[in-house]
Amino acid sequence: MTFADRLDASIAERGNPCLVGLDPHLDLLPEPFAKARDSARPRAERAELVAQFCCELADVVAGRVPAVKPQSAFFELLGADGVAAWERVVDHSRARGLLVVGDVKRGDIGSTAAAYARAHLAPGPGACDAVTINPYLGAESVEPFLRACTEHGAGIFVLVRTSNPGSAEFQAAGDPPLVERVARAVAQWGEQIMGECGLSSVGAVVGATHPAELARLRALMPKTPLLLPGYGAQGASGADLVDAYLPGQRGALVAASRSVAFAWRSRPDQTWQDAASAALDEMIADVTAHA
Amino acid sequence: MTFADRLDASIAERGNPCLVGLDPHLDLLPEPFAKARDSARPRAERAELVAQFCCELADVVAGRVPAVKPQSAFFELLGADGVAAWERVVDHSRARGLLVVGDVKRGDIGSTAAAYARAHLAPGPGACDAVTINPYLGAESVEPFLRACTEHGAGIFVLVRTSNPGSAEFQAAGDPPLVERVARAVAQWGEQIMGECGLSSVGAVVGATHPAELARLRALMPKTPLLLPGYGAQGASGADLVDAYLPGQRGALVAASRSVAFAWRSRPDQTWQDAASAALDEMIADVTAHA
Repeated sequence: MTFADRLDASIAERGNPCLVGLDPHLDLLPEPFAKARDSARPRAERAELVAQFCCELADVVAGRVPAVKPQSAFFELLGADGVAAWERVVDHSRARGLLVVGDVKRGDIGSTAAAYARAHLAPGPGACDAVTINPYLGAESVEPFLRACTEHGAGIFVLVRTSNPGSAEFQAAGDPPLVERVARAVAQWGEQIMGECGLSSVGAVVGATHPAELARLRALMPKTPLLLPGYGAQGASGADLVDAYLPGQRGALVAASRSVAFAWRSRPDQTWQDAASAALDEMIADVTAHA
Repeated sequence: MTFADRLDASIAERGNPCLVGLDPHLDLLPEPFAKARDSARPRAERAELVAQFCCELADVVAGRVPAVKPQSAFFELLGADGVAAWERVVDHSRARGLLVVGDVKRGDIGSTAAAYARAHLAPGPGACDAVTINPYLGAESVEPFLRACTEHGAGIFVLVRTSNPGSAEFQAAGDPPLVERVARAVAQWGEQIMGECGLSSVGAVVGATHPAELARLRALMPKTPLLLPGYGAQGASGADLVDAYLPGQRGALVAASRSVAFAWRSRPDQTWQDAASAALDEMIADVTAHA
């Protein structure tokens, strides 16, 4: 089954388009995982704690949201041990029925891009349902991923408009702006990998922090799943996202990371799991109230 | 000592600006390493072969060129075992006196970018002298790397104009073209991290396959080390590169990967090491003949 169809079915089944980021910032981990930030401890032990935290967080959200998004950087920080933890977290999350969008933002050309695509999308330890990729190198950097998507029923989310305040520096440059050129290319690449649901397995990352642009970008990419980072800690709320959805809140994933994973920091009277669970309930209620 | 000063000294000492890519394409590995492509073998065993090949290739070029550039994708392909191999190759190369430019092309924002910078530039297993990064997310994605460069005496090479035929798709879009906006930004970021040699530790990737653009990009980035991929297998030769150098062939690294590492394929009468060594001699002679 294509990634697009699996995503569409999971959003319908869970009744919401929310995605929880698995971003194990060492400095934000709750007890008993906080020992992971102690660089005097063996790296393998620190990576084990990171894996445990992320797997338990996946358990908290499993069955309630369609997808999770582990962030590669926080695992790479612990080298080969961290990548072993990444593989565990990806495999555990998928085993719990969550779609896994690996936030790797890779981008390279030719056989190198093919190696990245195989590394992250081909069956094996740590294989993701989809990954994020960076389009700076052009279509040649995307094509090997398109082939991998077709072969493995996987998906990609191409960076179009990122959620950071300074993302306009290059993305808004030009006339038409770069972001529109990339959006048109994403829509065109996506035509090659359509699901039966009418959506493509080629998605786009569009920051939830740019609500004024969502309608225009949705119009340029009418069949494209949109991954919308920036909900919660970065400031976006459910009301900002209405222009991103297709009818029935289909075709989008609203991503929150710190506001769910580290909700314990603002809810000191709860366990970290209860705090994350309550924060997720609030997110789902807010997002589904603005369909 | 800054990365810029270490690079400048090494180019002067070796008498050439050549860099050899350590790109262990599984399909191109010579005997006895070819078993690494057999996916029925244990992944750790395959990664061990990849590490051995790259370390032996580093031995062939050590003392003769200033730097090597391992390509992350081919290691990630073997998961956590591959990343352990990456760490071995990076550490072995540095121990042999080679500067290591980790070709990782990472790019993210805020604390995530800081995690990538720490992962690849902070002291520890697999710490590189410099890494390649992708500028699509703007200055916010670069600043954490600038801080890491200052803290650790490290460097970065920001993708400006990549070597692939289709790189113009987005990089040449706009007026001024995106590539010039990024080049100006690279020059400006670099002012924060200048070496005593007058060059910055903030470099740029500019494909050697675009000789007509080199003079213009060099003028926009007069103090920027240029990493010039595309020599050899991708078609560029020494004569194409003259506009990239500062006087004395300073301020640049000419990168060849397949044409050196896999020279055995066109020199069947030689061992793979002798073939790589001879190909490197030819590269050095060609590059230094066009100063």
